[in-house]
Amino acid sequence: MLRNSAPPAPSFDLPAYLERSAAAVNAALDRYLPRASARPATLHRAMRYSLFAGGKRLRPALCLAAAEACGGTWEAALPLACAVECIHTYSLIHDDLPAMDNDDFRRGKPTNHKVFGEGIAILAGDALLTIAFEMAARARGWPRYPHQRLILELAEAAGSRQLVGGQVADLEAEGRSVSLAELRYIHERKTSALLRCAVRLGGMSANCPPAQLEALSQFGHAVGLAFQVIDDILDVTQSSEQLGKTAGKDTAARKATYPAVLGLEASRRAAAQLTRRAFAALAPFRGRARALEVLADHLLRRDR
Amino acid sequence: MLRNSAPPAPSFDLPAYLERSAAAVNAALDRYLPRASARPATLHRAMRYSLFAGGKRLRPALCLAAAEACGGTWEAALPLACAVECIHTYSLIHDDLPAMDNDDFRRGKPTNHKVFGEGIAILAGDALLTIAFEMAARARGWPRYPHQRLILELAEAAGSRQLVGGQVADLEAEGRSVSLAELRYIHERKTSALLRCAVRLGGMSANCPPAQLEALSQFGHAVGLAFQVIDDILDVTQSSEQLGKTAGKDTAARKATYPAVLGLEASRRAAAQLTRRAFAALAPFRGRARALEVLADHLLRRDR
Repeated sequence: MLRNSAPPAPSFDLPAYLERSAAAVNAALDRYLPRASARPATLHRAMRYSLFAGGKRLRPALCLAAAEACGGTWEAALPLACAVECIHTYSLIHDDLPAMDNDDFRRGKPTNHKVFGEGIAILAGDALLTIAFEMAARARGWPRYPHQRLILELAEAAGSRQLVGGQVADLEAEGRSVSLAELRYIHERKTSALLRCAVRLGGMSANCPPAQLEALSQFGHAVGLAFQVIDDILDVTQSSEQLGKTAGKDTAARKATYPAVLGLEASRRAAAQLTRRAFAALAPFRGRARALEVLADHLLRRDR
Repeated sequence: MLRNSAPPAPSFDLPAYLERSAAAVNAALDRYLPRASARPATLHRAMRYSLFAGGKRLRPALCLAAAEACGGTWEAALPLACAVECIHTYSLIHDDLPAMDNDDFRRGKPTNHKVFGEGIAILAGDALLTIAFEMAARARGWPRYPHQRLILELAEAAGSRQLVGGQVADLEAEGRSVSLAELRYIHERKTSALLRCAVRLGGMSANCPPAQLEALSQFGHAVGLAFQVIDDILDVTQSSEQLGKTAGKDTAARKATYPAVLGLEASRRAAAQLTRRAFAALAPFRGRARALEVLADHLLRRDR
């Protein structure tokens, strides 16, 4: 499917990289979050349940890899990587609610509201969204990228014109046919916005020059969109067991998806084209964006 | 009920003050928020529906008055006052949901989910919480109170140990008897935390010295707690019409309230004591906290 993507160099050990970055992110999240026993314990247990439910930490890994590509350190990027992961997790908890996608399983485990009830699930999402800004505020700022800038970046990506707006557009598209432009509007917001934000914040943590920030934006946008197109394809072609969540749900709910609008083959071509665009965006980094390249290749080959 | 509170000086025209401050806050909120027509329009309409549903803007007024007391300007305090109001509004939207308090009316109007449906109401709340941080990031920072500090202040007041934590504890207290300590824990978080945050942020916007910030904290804490105790009392003693929301709901839902734990008379004494404490906290400001004093007096005399 993605013959046009650059094959990872044999020297780069992606599983080891992902393991190390996830360990760093998990340790930082554990430090930033109140203990599970902290009052009110139900809330903190619910926040930790979804945050530590086996997520692959792909957004944080992209954030750390972007920092590396710009000559920065994981340490400086970690609070921002964790902030993005908290926002991602909150959005999943709320999306899974009966009033939205009504999903019982996520990553092979019962969803937050199935375990804790709807009220607590809504509040656990609210608290994760809130603590994300606390984490971002704890990051190091630079004259070019002061806290004001970091917070605006995160708030815009998570806000009504991006992440939340995408979820609303997605809800509203259910059960009716949508155009490709509409579908792209939804996917750019539901998936690309936060992924793009993750790599941009990684660059900002490394005090990157504006040209690198622009390259990261293009990379993040293309990877995010490709990722979502592939997600749509997998929902059609894989089983629930393979996915770790209910397969075919998009079709059942008459969700707006690429295969539904374009057909399977054209969707695969779209994914391949976006993938090429993502790799092309990394050219200005020359050799220094190996981790980003290999991560993108991994993200966009999930059907293999 | 509150004989111990200082009577407002005849020279201070509170209705005019409230009208001017609400007008300034409404204009600023209207500027900060995406147009109702901005895509996705349903979401922005839902956000504006609750934000402009006739709230009295008491928290923003307290924020502006605190800035004044510290020699600052409304202009500098406005982004923070608006941020607090967005967080207050989001918390009402989510609290009214069927999974929480299940309220059909708020301020005499149908609640957000009754008009827009539960999914949109949850997302409108999420977007209001998110945009609050954007507003706070747009405020002016000072070396003593940089954006990092402002964001942490807001995130802590809104987070799992304060506002959201209070709502969880409140949910968990339903239908069983609670101690006075537990009830205080809930009220401090559900009401005091954000009110205290509003006056503290007002002080910070005026670059106040630490002693003034401490005085504002004590004032905000006492006013917030007194306000909630009086709210509990009014739910028992007033009609739905007078309240603009369903009366007696606390009792019906077996909610933890001061009258339920202490009885009506002892609750009234507790409110009076907290009120005295609030006014005492303003002593260090000498004559410069008139607006705060009169506002507190107004807030704590709602039964007259």
